[in-house]
Amino acid sequence: MVKNDVELLTRGTEEILPKDEFLEKLKKSEETQLPLTIKAGFDPTAPDIHLGHTVLLRKMRHFQQMGHRVVFLIGDFTGMIGDPTGKSETRKKLTREEVLLNAETYKKQVFKILDPEKTVVEFNSKWCQKMDFAGVLELTSHYNVARMLERDDFSKRYKSGKSISIIEFMYPLVQGYDSVALKADVEMGGTDQKFNLLVGRDLQKEYGLKPQSIITLPLLVGLDGEQKMSKSLGNYVGINESPKDIFGKIMSISDELMFTYYELVTDVPRAEIAAMRSAMQDGSQHPKAIKARLAKDICAQFYDVETAQRAEAEFNTIFAKKELPDEIEEFTLDASELTEGKIWIVKLLVATKLAASNGEARRLIAGGGVYIDQERLGDADLELNAPFAVLIKVGKRRFMRINAEAKN
Amino acid sequence: MVKNDVELLTRGTEEILPKDEFLEKLKKSEETQLPLTIKAGFDPTAPDIHLGHTVLLRKMRHFQQMGHRVVFLIGDFTGMIGDPTGKSETRKKLTREEVLLNAETYKKQVFKILDPEKTVVEFNSKWCQKMDFAGVLELTSHYNVARMLERDDFSKRYKSGKSISIIEFMYPLVQGYDSVALKADVEMGGTDQKFNLLVGRDLQKEYGLKPQSIITLPLLVGLDGEQKMSKSLGNYVGINESPKDIFGKIMSISDELMFTYYELVTDVPRAEIAAMRSAMQDGSQHPKAIKARLAKDICAQFYDVETAQRAEAEFNTIFAKKELPDEIEEFTLDASELTEGKIWIVKLLVATKLAASNGEARRLIAGGGVYIDQERLGDADLELNAPFAVLIKVGKRRFMRINAEAKN
Repeated sequence: MVKNDVELLTRGTEEILPKDEFLEKLKKSEETQLPLTIKAGFDPTAPDIHLGHTVLLRKMRHFQQMGHRVVFLIGDFTGMIGDPTGKSETRKKLTREEVLLNAETYKKQVFKILDPEKTVVEFNSKWCQKMDFAGVLELTSHYNVARMLERDDFSKRYKSGKSISIIEFMYPLVQGYDSVALKADVEMGGTDQKFNLLVGRDLQKEYGLKPQSIITLPLLVGLDGEQKMSKSLGNYVGINESPKDIFGKIMSISDELMFTYYELVTDVPRAEIAAMRSAMQDGSQHPKAIKARLAKDICAQFYDVETAQRAEAEFNTIFAKKELPDEIEEFTLDASELTEGKIWIVKLLVATKLAASNGEARRLIAGGGVYIDQERLGDADLELNAPFAVLIKVGKRRFMRINAEAKN
Repeated sequence: MVKNDVELLTRGTEEILPKDEFLEKLKKSEETQLPLTIKAGFDPTAPDIHLGHTVLLRKMRHFQQMGHRVVFLIGDFTGMIGDPTGKSETRKKLTREEVLLNAETYKKQVFKILDPEKTVVEFNSKWCQKMDFAGVLELTSHYNVARMLERDDFSKRYKSGKSISIIEFMYPLVQGYDSVALKADVEMGGTDQKFNLLVGRDLQKEYGLKPQSIITLPLLVGLDGEQKMSKSLGNYVGINESPKDIFGKIMSISDELMFTYYELVTDVPRAEIAAMRSAMQDGSQHPKAIKARLAKDICAQFYDVETAQRAEAEFNTIFAKKELPDEIEEFTLDASELTEGKIWIVKLLVATKLAASNGEARRLIAGGGVYIDQERLGDADLELNAPFAVLIKVGKRRFMRINAEAKN
């Protein structure tokens, strides 16, 4: 059954072109109960899905939830060709077996987001391999040079005298022809794909089809908060990473970036996101807590809620440990220092020379500068019962592990 | 057996690139006695060969005479595709049958110039039809956009904002790939083909072959002396035209153009051509006679020497007729003027009042001013036997038809 939630579908998108036409298609699909065909293309050479890819995958998921036909298109055809010039190391020629293997790896990952029951996985080699020279010539007759050269990167390279191989003109045509073959109603992709998506729209018109609407999605900024998330830059969260790593990586992002992530990679309603932002700004909620919610949300998407909670607990322990310096002084308390098997914390600080006198020890505690096992000590009257092993921190930098045996 | 006449091979060419490399190939072919493969491509849609095409065909013939392997390549592949956009009326899609029919028509014509025994006729559909999308992509990877846009017509259109379809980038690649498939050592074409011939050279390098040398031949100026010879302009001599038409058309060209034709479409040695030019300039030879030799030479190329001579004779009659004014005075000689059934020419001129006296008649004849049936009269003693009907011309303009019946 087709039932559209326009708010959810349009949330977090960069551009919808042409928007009216897209809304009209949604309306009609509900009236006729005929699902739309939603196309999104994926590169067969990089089956390591990361959080950046999920911006698109989640949008595909939204369409699935609303009853549409979502095509997960693997562009294996050009992958099997590789870079015929042999100049690019990153475009190595893939065998059919490698493509299929990559596809399986893909599926394992994307089905963490997409509904396997509702996902049509296609390979563009299906129609491209059948196409002969005459077919290719026909394809090339449907697009012109000047328009191709308008593509940002081509235009820049042409103007600066950098070489553009004619094969590079062919790739957008291949991708566009996929839309013809699939009769796509909507194609989605990153903002960097806008030109190629429009080629698909143009080619559909040339081949006498109803042209697809296009939706571009913003490129997710990586953990560094600066560059687009990518494997090669190392600023990514892999969909197959351990819950612990996912949680930890999300906890490492900036406060500002966290709200972008909320918008693009969670379904947390926009109103709630706005509320959290206010709460952070007026100090009523600590950013770390808001970030932990985000980390748990993402972790739960790739695993489940319980796993996410365990990841948080584990993170907190690790986080605590991470605060410690590599080398920590150890001190074994002499049993003679104990009184009835106990020792007063002020006395302990003096005995270990962490404070010069009882007075200094009291002042340090009162100033909030003493931590026991990473918890700030508020009570200057505390007594420790032997046997004990504690980590004591005084001020920002001074650490000591102190242990005491029980008095025999 | 390979035996090169470098003088004849290079005569009348526009450019040979690179010349040293070409000469080296010739030298090697003699040393090794391995013939070179010479390629020339022809359009399958226009099988009406005219004199302009023979500039190239004759050069191919020269290579044949010297023992090389000449490939007459019919570009049927693109012909069978036509113009996929349907925008060009001149690029109608040809069927396989039409292509074969055109090829037969071609052969009938070109074998008037080429040696059928030594001509390899090839169709580029042979390799193009086998090429799949992957092969085409490889092909496009071997050439770059900027270089393609340097082609004169592309560059002009791109700069002036006129549309260039990407398929137009494909055609030079197809033609260039033909050189790869044929392993051509030399490709020849008109000067307008220079860019495409160089693409072939470049592609051969890309495919790891020894690059072809290219020879461009000038475009033959048409009968009008201004524009390139072409069927559509009507300024052409068709290879299949009647000897009479060929002869007549050549006789119609300007004196200057005739020397260009001598250079490009005959084997008359250059020294002889130069001598004729001098003779014409110092008045010792009439241009008409030099032109008649050219016309006979060309006619004999397409037919044979005897046919050419008959064409000349026929032309002279027609030409003579053409010299006559529309209205010619008629004179019937009274039988009483005859003596023993004959009349002396001097008496006839006086009787017809073409001369005022016997003395004037003799002077006219002696001055070469009297023609009988368009032949100059040298003999003042001539007697005409009745019955006769002659055309007499006196001076430049005076004509008279005179008839006499036999005396009863």
